[in-house]
Amino acid sequence: MTAAVNLSYVATAFEKFILDLQETICKEVEKSDTQGKFMEDCWTREEGGGGITRIIKEGLVFEKGGVNTSKVFGILPAAMQEAFNVQESNFLALGLSLVLHPRNPNVPTVHGNWRYFELFDTEGKIIDRWFGGGADLTPYYLINEDAIHFHSTFKKYIKPFGDDLYPRYKKNCDEYFVNKHRNNESRGIGGVFYDYLKPKDDQESKNLLLFQQATAAAFLEAYFPIVERRKGMVYGYAEKKWQEIRRGRYIEFNLIHDRGTLFGLKTNGRTESILMSLPPRARFDYNYWPKPGSKEDALLQVCLSPRDWVNEK
Amino acid sequence: MTAAVNLSYVATAFEKFILDLQETICKEVEKSDTQGKFMEDCWTREEGGGGITRIIKEGLVFEKGGVNTSKVFGILPAAMQEAFNVQESNFLALGLSLVLHPRNPNVPTVHGNWRYFELFDTEGKIIDRWFGGGADLTPYYLINEDAIHFHSTFKKYIKPFGDDLYPRYKKNCDEYFVNKHRNNESRGIGGVFYDYLKPKDDQESKNLLLFQQATAAAFLEAYFPIVERRKGMVYGYAEKKWQEIRRGRYIEFNLIHDRGTLFGLKTNGRTESILMSLPPRARFDYNYWPKPGSKEDALLQVCLSPRDWVNEK
Repeated sequence: MTAAVNLSYVATAFEKFILDLQETICKEVEKSDTQGKFMEDCWTREEGGGGITRIIKEGLVFEKGGVNTSKVFGILPAAMQEAFNVQESNFLALGLSLVLHPRNPNVPTVHGNWRYFELFDTEGKIIDRWFGGGADLTPYYLINEDAIHFHSTFKKYIKPFGDDLYPRYKKNCDEYFVNKHRNNESRGIGGVFYDYLKPKDDQESKNLLLFQQATAAAFLEAYFPIVERRKGMVYGYAEKKWQEIRRGRYIEFNLIHDRGTLFGLKTNGRTESILMSLPPRARFDYNYWPKPGSKEDALLQVCLSPRDWVNEK
Repeated sequence: MTAAVNLSYVATAFEKFILDLQETICKEVEKSDTQGKFMEDCWTREEGGGGITRIIKEGLVFEKGGVNTSKVFGILPAAMQEAFNVQESNFLALGLSLVLHPRNPNVPTVHGNWRYFELFDTEGKIIDRWFGGGADLTPYYLINEDAIHFHSTFKKYIKPFGDDLYPRYKKNCDEYFVNKHRNNESRGIGGVFYDYLKPKDDQESKNLLLFQQATAAAFLEAYFPIVERRKGMVYGYAEKKWQEIRRGRYIEFNLIHDRGTLFGLKTNGRTESILMSLPPRARFDYNYWPKPGSKEDALLQVCLSPRDWVNEK
């Protein structure tokens, strides 16, 4: 397919970016873990393209994690034609997706994604293209300092691209990662989420590439210092149990509501790479509610009423 | 609402049937458990109706289970109008749903459901009605004797209603409880599943009531003897781990594919009553495959190729 052979300037640059980022993040995870190492599975997609799945399991700090890249292309599946409201066309999708589930309930789970999408007419001419991505934090215990650090780091890196962007993308994130079937409980304390960022010209596409690089740099600075601060904290059975209950909610969101997961599973994506996002272990207790006023309840309350972290003390 | 006050003969009889059945099954579970007791939550639905949720947890034999009845009525939600291909109308839905997750990995998980549905025009005249239900078994280890017992008991009870029914409802079941995203792996060894059984006249509706009672009696005779035979078997960490991995697959089916679950969650059903079906604990290991030829693999293979249990030895 033409799209695969003749990558556009932006696609080439973005592919290099996600492959480098995968390398950087994996090194950072291994450094922080001190013991666990990533294993790698390369896979190909019959209809075109493939990916590199990197998994860490049973590390000292990270109980389970995946840092995956993929480059898939070919004829746009019928389901996607409808979703994007286009006729028969070809597509190219490049992306990095990561989820890290730490062992210690004081260290938050994190999710990040950077993607780029191109649509072509049947003659190979680009008819549309856009960037998307973001990152969000799922703590099991609320530590204000960490929440403020995560959000203000993203705000700092995004600010040069426009003062209105962080608030807008923060709001997107708060609205997206929600278990609607649980009284609109968020899966965590959010972060930023953006999609369909369509460059009008080459200058703008370079700018959006820089934007993706900025949020990737923000991710590294936002997350890993939290891991370092909290990975040595003491915890016991009660904290682990609460972590597993919250991980149940994480599963509910990913399998019931997450568009990316459902889309991947329903369009014959690689199931194991998609479902790497699921936590290693989870609990589903009937009608479980933490004791009002407990530290578990403090986390639940912030999931029910998202806060404006960067303007708080 | 008229539908609630003036129940049809069939609806009245079916309501009594499911309330009695709930009582019978709960007693059977408690007898088998010897220690665990059900707790009861009664709930009401703002738009009309409600239900009785009965939950057992951390029993000696049953790690988690729910035996729920509900009677809901009112204006048919828009999503259902589309699904049933009808105009604005009123509905009445009566049902019993149960899921039992035993502690011992040698005792299978079981699911059962009996339901009756009526649709009315705006003047209260019945425009359609049907019965549905079934039961399916999810073992963690394959014991042929148990699989044959489960299936042949249903066949025996269903036979008087027509020779062709068991094979047809068995096939429905094999086709329904499937994780399509996992290479069409079944969640277990099936059972029977039927829906839209529409009586043409009063005689037929009485016959279908008898049919529901027959499958309920079959359920009691099909499942509890298996529990008694297997609940004392020895198991260790490896068997529990495998059980938790299979329970991960159970979650995937219920949250990604099960129409009842998704329908309930998306039409403002009672989340805790719907999600009682989820197992108490589960694992999600990346790309986990049992050793070929192992007893875990034997179970997996039968999930990948459903068998005709009643004609086997």
